[in-house]
Amino acid sequence: MIFTYLGPAGTFTESALLQVPGAAEAERVPATSVNNALDRVREGAADAAMVPIENSVEGGVSATLDSIATGGSLQIVAEALVPITFDLVVRDGIEEPGQIRTVATHGHAWAQCRSWSEANMPTAEFIPASSTAAGALSILDEKSDVDAAICSPLVAQENPLKVLRHGIEDNAGAVTRFVLVRRPGSIPEPTGRDKTTVVIPLPEDRPGGLMEILEQFAARGVNLSRIESRPTGQGLGNYFFSVDTHGHIGEARMADALAGLHRISPNLRFLGSYPAAGPAQIDPPSLKRHNTDEAFAQAAEWVASIRGAGS
Amino acid sequence: MIFTYLGPAGTFTESALLQVPGAAEAERVPATSVNNALDRVREGAADAAMVPIENSVEGGVSATLDSIATGGSLQIVAEALVPITFDLVVRDGIEEPGQIRTVATHGHAWAQCRSWSEANMPTAEFIPASSTAAGALSILDEKSDVDAAICSPLVAQENPLKVLRHGIEDNAGAVTRFVLVRRPGSIPEPTGRDKTTVVIPLPEDRPGGLMEILEQFAARGVNLSRIESRPTGQGLGNYFFSVDTHGHIGEARMADALAGLHRISPNLRFLGSYPAAGPAQIDPPSLKRHNTDEAFAQAAEWVASIRGAGS
Amino acid sequence: MIFTYLGPAGTFTESALLQVPGAAEAERVPATSVNNALDRVREGAADAAMVPIENSVEGGVSATLDSIATGGSLQIVAEALVPITFDLVVRDGIEEPGQIRTVATHGHAWAQCRSWSEANMPTAEFIPASSTAAGALSILDEKSDVDAAICSPLVAQENPLKVLRHGIEDNAGAVTRFVLVRRPGSIPEPTGRDKTTVVIPLPEDRPGGLMEILEQFAARGVNLSRIESRPTGQGLGNYFFSVDTHGHIGEARMADALAGLHRISPNLRFLGSYPAAGPAQIDPPSLKRHNTDEAFAQAAEWVASIRGAGS
Amino acid sequence: MIFTYLGPAGTFTESALLQVPGAAEAERVPATSVNNALDRVREGAADAAMVPIENSVEGGVSATLDSIATGGSLQIVAEALVPITFDLVVRDGIEEPGQIRTVATHGHAWAQCRSWSEANMPTAEFIPASSTAAGALSILDEKSDVDAAICSPLVAQENPLKVLRHGIEDNAGAVTRFVLVRRPGSIPEPTGRDKTTVVIPLPEDRPGGLMEILEQFAARGVNLSRIESRPTGQGLGNYFFSVDTHGHIGEARMADALAGLHRISPNLRFLGSYPAAGPAQIDPPSLKRHNTDEAFAQAAEWVASIRGAGS
Repeated sequence: MIFTYLGPAGTFTESALLQVPGAAEAERVPATSVNNALDRVREGAADAAMVPIENSVEGGVSATLDSIATGGSLQIVAEALVPITFDLVVRDGIEEPGQIRTVATHGHAWAQCRSWSEANMPTAEFIPASSTAAGALSILDEKSDVDAAICSPLVAQENPLKVLRHGIEDNAGAVTRFVLVRRPGSIPEPTGRDKTTVVIPLPEDRPGGLMEILEQFAARGVNLSRIESRPTGQGLGNYFFSVDTHGHIGEARMADALAGLHRISPNLRFLGSYPAAGPAQIDPPSLKRHNTDEAFAQAAEWVASIRGAGS
Repeated sequence: MIFTYLGPAGTFTESALLQVPGAAEAERVPATSVNNALDRVREGAADAAMVPIENSVEGGVSATLDSIATGGSLQIVAEALVPITFDLVVRDGIEEPGQIRTVATHGHAWAQCRSWSEANMPTAEFIPASSTAAGALSILDEKSDVDAAICSPLVAQENPLKVLRHGIEDNAGAVTRFVLVRRPGSIPEPTGRDKTTVVIPLPEDRPGGLMEILEQFAARGVNLSRIESRPTGQGLGNYFFSVDTHGHIGEARMADALAGLHRISPNLRFLGSYPAAGPAQIDPPSLKRHNTDEAFAQAAEWVASIRGAGS
Repeated sequence: MIFTYLGPAGTFTESALLQVPGAAEAERVPATSVNNALDRVREGAADAAMVPIENSVEGGVSATLDSIATGGSLQIVAEALVPITFDLVVRDGIEEPGQIRTVATHGHAWAQCRSWSEANMPTAEFIPASSTAAGALSILDEKSDVDAAICSPLVAQENPLKVLRHGIEDNAGAVTRFVLVRRPGSIPEPTGRDKTTVVIPLPEDRPGGLMEILEQFAARGVNLSRIESRPTGQGLGNYFFSVDTHGHIGEARMADALAGLHRISPNLRFLGSYPAAGPAQIDPPSLKRHNTDEAFAQAAEWVASIRGAGS
Repeated sequence: MIFTYLGPAGTFTESALLQVPGAAEAERVPATSVNNALDRVREGAADAAMVPIENSVEGGVSATLDSIATGGSLQIVAEALVPITFDLVVRDGIEEPGQIRTVATHGHAWAQCRSWSEANMPTAEFIPASSTAAGALSILDEKSDVDAAICSPLVAQENPLKVLRHGIEDNAGAVTRFVLVRRPGSIPEPTGRDKTTVVIPLPEDRPGGLMEILEQFAARGVNLSRIESRPTGQGLGNYFFSVDTHGHIGEARMADALAGLHRISPNLRFLGSYPAAGPAQIDPPSLKRHNTDEAFAQAAEWVASIRGAGS
């Protein structure tokens, strides 16, 4: 089993990958971009790729959405949540944040620790790095004059770096969401707490077009947890929607909603049903009786019995 | 084959029945009420009943709606349209409307010819009759002092009555709609121009409850041609909806809409799919590609192929 | 103050009229038809008319719906509920139902007492009458051979008729709904338990047309208590909807819903806001915060404040 | 007038800023992050900020969405579209792509030129840079061993860099969208081709919650051109929607839609109405009569006239 992920090593994406059972012992190949990671899976050079899909502090979400929406078919088989928390690592000799003159990190990470930085190391100069991991490793480069870096706990832990402070992010509690992607194959069994991801081209650019799509979900009691419009790249006004929903295609309400969507937008793409990560997000009582598998089965039987009477 | 209908003989309902192939030669038994007619069918005393379902000039619509919605199961197998047009029949000796002093007819018929009557027989007194046929026949009763009657062309034609004027209704072009009802059995084959009638109890009395029902039709491109709320008789605020739609249960979009309704309102009642009477009311181009049988079949295949991949 | 109503005297419609404060002492003129009653009001010959709008046992509902929808403008100012209950009145000498050989009544009344009649006076023959009142009065006609009649309690009480049994209807608890109609004028003050009646021509005959109309109500939390489609008389496929809703035009959510409807169907007709009769049908907690007058006022202020910032 | 933007100098964001009339001559201060740029505007250190809002090749979109949704109030006053096109710049001595051994650029840019790179400079090694501009400038650094860089046309043009190839991106035609943001003030006049951006917290996490929001737009014929759900950071399942729509708050349909949204989600945030950039995206005939300012005015008058009759 070979895994790939949005690199370099030590990023939050690798942290996400390490949550996958067996990944810690498996071969993990960093990729230079999301597209690169996904193409390795498509071409068979890797078995699965971990890529960001929401709220990434190191970018890549748009690339993930676009590549899984329009490139060769892939399937999401798992999701992983990683808390967005940063360590301050320093070179030898630095004992207090106030001593730091230069800090290397990714621009997004710098932005997320700005208040802390202004309060605790007001004279530190920001040195943009291509990733939080690259910033951290630059401390180890003797030629560099980098005093400190802001990086993920993973990179701090896996390298000979001195951690001066943990958790210096301004907003505690934020999480990044990643998905594990494979070549299409079997769908993970329903667990009762699943997500289903689909990509739906907008059939026509007109008022209510998106609403027609969402009605297919709402009419079957299927809840959405993420929606993003993305330009298809085929001219302004051409959009697709990338959507995460609660439920599994093995459940009647989801299968029925997808069938309804297929009629409206026949080029929609099913990207997988997989267990939801993190604490339960679905309040079971919110699944009304008329959206249960039983209700669907009874309805189908009733219609069949009437139609049968006519033959 | 024994037919029954809302009597007495000579009403518009009998006109509707005579449109049914074979009815002219068959036994036709008038019933004293819609309930009476329908119960004869339920009990096997008649094979089919013609009853009014929309716009009747002699009443009975509510009785039809309620009896087919809540009584023993029945099935609509045909509909018939009858133009609402009235003849003025008179006793011997009357040559001009101005000579008429008394006119017997049903109150509704009198109302529909009122402008003509005021203009042409201003001094005529209205004698309420229990039906237009009863009014006309009272002319033949030697003991009565009825000069004239307003009745259906059928009663004028089938009795020794002198017709002074044809078509004295104030509004030309109105039609009454009737349905032919049988005990449940096979469903007439789809003709491409069909109607389907259903009775749907309102699941909950709340804003949007009816809209949820109608969404099931709209989401599949099924058009409505009649809707009426009726109290269920089980307390205020308890309603059912009697609905006519364009389409046949043999068509995928209708079957799918009914399945959706069954989930929301499991006690709904299917009252039949049958050929629509009269001129075409369905503009075929309005059936969008995504509501065709083909689109439904493709959608079902697509979902099955994905679910199959998971096994 | 002169009242008119769907006659003759002694019908359920007169019972409804007698619920109106002052009507018992006022002049009450029976009309031969609903159209006749409404036209008297339009022409100034009467000040107000009581006419049936739902579930009438003596017909007239369609005539009411059509006349107030398409004739000269009128306004509903009150509604009245009358229980559908029947008395059995008999001529002198009849002591037991089993003795009755002939029963005169309106066909609809006969239908509603059929089980009782079959059980208690199985040999009685039904004599159709033009109204329940006419049937009852025929007992007093010495020339007639009518033994009994089924009529409203009112006619039994106001005439020298012997009541053999009370409440012989097969289904207890049904009610008829009537409305009191005037020439357009001031709107009754909101009471917190009001209804609003509107007539809405269907803008286009297409799937979802009715849903678009109902969305205007649902989007503001306005509940429906009655809906009926009626042919406009201008060709098949041309419909209007007669709708009763809970709420008063003096409330923001109703005013906003009507404004939305006016955009979609500019020829809609407002028929009045008036106190609801009978026990409370509106569960006050069902009025969500976002549909209160306060929420509407705050929303309007917020938008105005933004638009104001632009000037 | 002082402008700021997501730096460093030479990025696509600066290209977007240079489209703003007067910006070329004004002071332009690069910011290290989107948050930094927006905070400068909030604090008065800059008058306006250009930041990415869709499809950025250098990241920042999520930061823009979150900062304008939840930080101190800001207003979008313009948008700018920049084609995503890349130049290949090289150090002196490189005459053919095949000679290149190292290429410095941002990871996203590298991903977007990957096919061209594999075909034309297959042996070149990717050196991650913190921005396309930083990568390009590293060529000028004598200590670096960077042979080439992939960067925006702007940075190539404003620095002493040798352009070996123009337009090496794999997918021609893609565009990035940026917005110009100020402290709240007057709203740009309607032009007939405007956009309005709003941020709408999801009132409740339940099936149909998003649909209720979109209905407010659809019911008034307001089209969406972008939608993204974003976690609020206050626990899983708490979302807001960032939405771009066609239309201006000065138009009745938009004002009415926003009022409807305010009732449902009182904490929604209006982020501005501003001219749409690029070719026309709104087909004027798609604005149905019933969504015109005139239709809204007539509807308001009609309701007022009825309510007035009641006073």
